[in-house]
Formats: sequence, structure tokens, C-alpha cells
Amino acid sequence: MDALLAVDAGGTKCEALLVGPDGALLGWGLCRAEDPTSGTSWGGKGRSKESTLSALRRALGEHRPASLTVSGLGRWDVPELAQPYTPGEVHAVPVAEWDAPLALAGVDWGVVVLSGTGAFVHGAAPDGERLHLDSLGPLLGDYGSGSMIGWMALRAVARHHWSPRHETALTEAVGAVLGIDVHEKGLGRLVDFAHKPHDRAVVAQLARYVDEAARAGDAVAGRILAEAAAAQAEVVRDVVDRLALAEVAFPLVAAGSVATRSALYWAHLCAAVAGFAPRAEPVVPAGPQVLGTALRALGRIGLEHWRERLRAEVLAASPRDAD
Amino acid sequence: MDALLAVDAGGTKCEALLVGPDGALLGWGLCRAEDPTSGTSWGGKGRSKESTLSALRRALGEHRPASLTVSGLGRWDVPELAQPYTPGEVHAVPVAEWDAPLALAGVDWGVVVLSGTGAFVHGAAPDGERLHLDSLGPLLGDYGSGSMIGWMALRAVARHHWSPRHETALTEAVGAVLGIDVHEKGLGRLVDFAHKPHDRAVVAQLARYVDEAARAGDAVAGRILAEAAAAQAEVVRDVVDRLALAEVAFPLVAAGSVATRSALYWAHLCAAVAGFAPRAEPVVPAGPQVLGTALRALGRIGLEHWRERLRAEVLAASPRDAD
Repeated sequence: MDALLAVDAGGTKCEALLVGPDGALLGWGLCRAEDPTSGTSWGGKGRSKESTLSALRRALGEHRPASLTVSGLGRWDVPELAQPYTPGEVHAVPVAEWDAPLALAGVDWGVVVLSGTGAFVHGAAPDGERLHLDSLGPLLGDYGSGSMIGWMALRAVARHHWSPRHETALTEAVGAVLGIDVHEKGLGRLVDFAHKPHDRAVVAQLARYVDEAARAGDAVAGRILAEAAAAQAEVVRDVVDRLALAEVAFPLVAAGSVATRSALYWAHLCAAVAGFAPRAEPVVPAGPQVLGTALRALGRIGLEHWRERLRAEVLAASPRDAD
Repeated sequence: MDALLAVDAGGTKCEALLVGPDGALLGWGLCRAEDPTSGTSWGGKGRSKESTLSALRRALGEHRPASLTVSGLGRWDVPELAQPYTPGEVHAVPVAEWDAPLALAGVDWGVVVLSGTGAFVHGAAPDGERLHLDSLGPLLGDYGSGSMIGWMALRAVARHHWSPRHETALTEAVGAVLGIDVHEKGLGRLVDFAHKPHDRAVVAQLARYVDEAARAGDAVAGRILAEAAAAQAEVVRDVVDRLALAEVAFPLVAAGSVATRSALYWAHLCAAVAGFAPRAEPVVPAGPQVLGTALRALGRIGLEHWRERLRAEVLAASPRDAD
């Protein structure tokens, strides 16, 4: 292997790391939803071809490795997209979206709670049994996801004016983000917005404003986070029941921007999980999800001894406020 | 006036009554979503031009009145659609969707709780003040509506297999209605269904199966009805608060297929309302909504003395299981 390209393509952003054969961090690339070079796709902006290409190019920089190992799921055509950037062969080492968080947490099994643009709960039992629930999309499931929280925010804003008990700071924030003045006859525009198709990132991005408002004491925003966390805790419960983990000490690993960045969301979720799995051990791993992908890929191709170097370099570079 | 044509165009069906100048019931026409002559529209099948025309033609039958008075809202072009069926003039007497239930209940003021394909709460205070809340559509509101209940049913079906505690008879019913086998690898087809645009009637029609399942003791269906009713009771609360009706004895009038036909839904809603408006007097008026439209229109054009005749004739004809 001349270089490893780890890719994390999510609903809202695409992130890529370029790693040398000795675990050195060679490059890092991020393309967020707000980036003018980002594209749009059914699964969300981060999974578009344009976003992936932007992240890939930025991670490669001037590097043109003689051969490239590509890892990560989310976009199955990344090896093909990478081909023009290397004179040699491109190999694929698939790393599932649920394995990267386990690698990032430094564990081999446990329950992964992903809440990003979408949401799922993935259980990996000590005996090797696996169970994946949700990933149903924003209309049928994605319990606890940024999309769910975003839609709850839109509904809260829509009834802001019905009664003083529904007033919320979200109205200002959502109005500013979406460019809709819902104070003066703007409700019709919000209804129009709701009925048009949007990239998943557009509604999911509202989750961070819900978290901000909740932290500032907004009661409506606080209830949205609590309700979303309770909904995802129910999914955790299904996984815990079916994998017989209720009495077991297991790592409960946070993944995705909502679970790892909203301390309020995670606190609500952990409190609910403690009710049916008292020995669950919550972990919010340091570092971006794409690092987990790279760590797992290094293990797969026999370079596990370089994992700690890569982890140290990425955490030291403290890449920035990725989401 | 030679004849009055009252029209009730809802999300799922369009219904029309033809009334003589002496209050006699001359004709009745219904076009349901399942009717092959029904059309489709943004607001639901009942509001399509095709459905309206079918109901109109069926109500007219062989009658070709020399002049026609058309009443009802929901489709603003009904007078124009009726023009080819009368040699004379067509007059319009608008009757709002919230006034028909009051007329049907035989009261001049009160709180109308409509839950059909869509949903709203309309308050008419004794001093003439009015407040209309919701009608926001299935994504932003329509709290308690058939659409809301239908989407909750789809979500319940989507997680049926996650755990024994989510098992529900709705899976069988929804699968049969939508033609989707969700037992064997059918979940992907349910996800596909959820992400395609549908006429509002398609999802809203599931509400009646939720009611059936709840009556048969299905716990999941029971919780859906209770949750939807609680959500609409919150809207009633906003109206009661803002019109200062909390201590007043007022009629709480059911309208729409869910509120008038699901006794469970209505019981949950009334119990919740009793908590903040103990003097509310629940009324589920007999007869179809379109009768309310005709009654109100007769009053508006000075023929109020024929209202009781029309009411008696329609109730005696007991037109059938309209929804």
C-alpha cells in the first residue's frame, strides 16, 4: 500500500483522510453542505458525487500515490472516483458505517448509537451476533436523527404564534437559516417550504440550532431534544433486548453529529438507556468518524501497529470543528 | 332559487346534495377516493376536479334546474363546473368548512374539532370572535388528522419486526391496503412507498384501519389513536385559552371522518379537553357534513324555515356509510 484514503460520506458532509503506509497523516479533506462545491443527492449532500470528489481532492492535495487503498462506505463509487488521481491501482477495503465508531472507541463490540443526518442503532454482541435497526429515512424512522429533530423544529415554528406556551427562540433561528420570515404572513412560505423536496441536509442542519436554543434555556427546543433522544433510546432497547445485553456491561458508543456534539441529547439518551441496561458504559469517542474508518481499514490490511500513530496525529492536528 | 347544490369537498371524498326550494332532498352524490372516477390533487382526491364533477353529476341526476345556488368551500370553481348542467344562472353562497359543522350541530357558536384527511380547530366565541388554528398540512401540523394517524401507522409497521413489543395487527392491514408485503423483505418497498409523493387520501385512508385494530385490542393502534387525540387536544387548548372559554359551557363539535367515526379517538380527545375546559359539551352531530353546508346555505338565502325538513329527509334517507 502506498496510501490509504478513508472516506466518511454522511447526509450532510463528506470527509476524507489520506494516510501513509506508516500511519502518517498526509492529508485531510472536508466538504460540508454549505460548501459551494457540494452537490445534492437522495441520501443527502454529503453522499453526492460532487461532495465526495471535493473531499477526495482536498485530502489528496499534491499527493499522487502509486497505489491507493480506499475504505469507507456511503459511496460505492469512491474507488472509481479516485482512479484519475493515482497512476497505479486502487483497492477497496469496505468499512461499514457502524464499524468505524467501534474502531474510534477502541472496542471490538458494543452498541453504536448513530444520530447524524439519519440515525441507526447497531449492536455487536461479544459472541459475534450483530443487529442493525433503523436507517429507515426521515419519514419512516431515523429515530433521534438530525432530520427528525429538524422536522420537529419546523413544526414548533409553525405553531409559535398559536399561544404564548408555544413561543420559541427557534422561530428566529430557523427563519434566519432558511431565509423565511415566519413572523409576518410567513407561515404560508413555511408550508410551501415543507411541501417541496429538499436535500436531507437542509432540514437536518436545523438540529444544531435546536441544541443551541435548548442550551440557552428554550423550553420548546429542550423538549424536542428530550423527545428525540427518548425515541432513539427505544431503538437501543430493542437491540439490547434482542442481543440479551440488559445485564451485560457493554460500551454504548456515540456516533454522528447529534449524538457526539449535543451533550444534552446524549445525556437524555443515556439516562433512558440506564433504565433498561444499567451496566451500559457510554462512550463519546474523540476524533472524527473518518478516523474510525481509517483505523479499522489499517487493521484490515495488516497495519494495525500504525493505528495509534495515526490516531495521535489526527487528534493533535485536532482537525477543527467538523460536523 | 330553483335548486341548491351543497358541496363538501374533503381530502378523501367529495359529496354533494341537491335541495329543492322547499327543502326537499332531490339528489345526493358521493365520489370516494376508491371510485374510479375520482381524480387526484394536491389537497387530496376529494378536492380534485374529477371527484367534484362526479359528485355533482350524481346529485343532479336528471334534474336541470332553471337556476342553481351552489354552496360550500373546498373547491372554488364548483359554480363554473355546475354551469353546463343548468340553463340559467348559477349563484354562489360560500359556506366555510368550519361553519357547516356548527349548522349541523344546530348551534351558532362553539369549538369545531375537525379531523378528517386534514385537521383544524376553529373557535367561534359567543361575542363573535373567531380563531382558526392548524390546517397546516401533514408535514407541519394537521394534528390528529387521518394523515397524521396514517403516517404513524406506516412508522409502526416499519418497526414491527424490531421487537415483540412493536408487533401490531396494522402490518397485515396496511400491507393489504397498500399492496405491500412487509413480512418478507418488503420493508424496502415500504421505504420506497414513503418517499414517493402520494395523494393525501392514500395515507389518510389508513386511519380507519387503525381505529379497527384499536377496537380489536391492538395496543400499538390504541396508542396511535391516543397520541393523535392528545395532539389535537393541545390545539383545542390553544383556542380555548385565546378565546377565554376555559370556564364557559360551550359546544365542542366533532367534524371529519376521524372525529365523528372513531369513538375511541373522540373519547380520548374529550377526556383531554375536560382537563382544561371542564364545561365543554361534546357533540357528534348526526348526518354528513354536506348537510351542514346545505343547512347553513338555506339560512343565508332566507329559507331557514326549510332547514328542519331537509334535515329530516336526509337523516331518514340515512344516506349510508359516507366518510
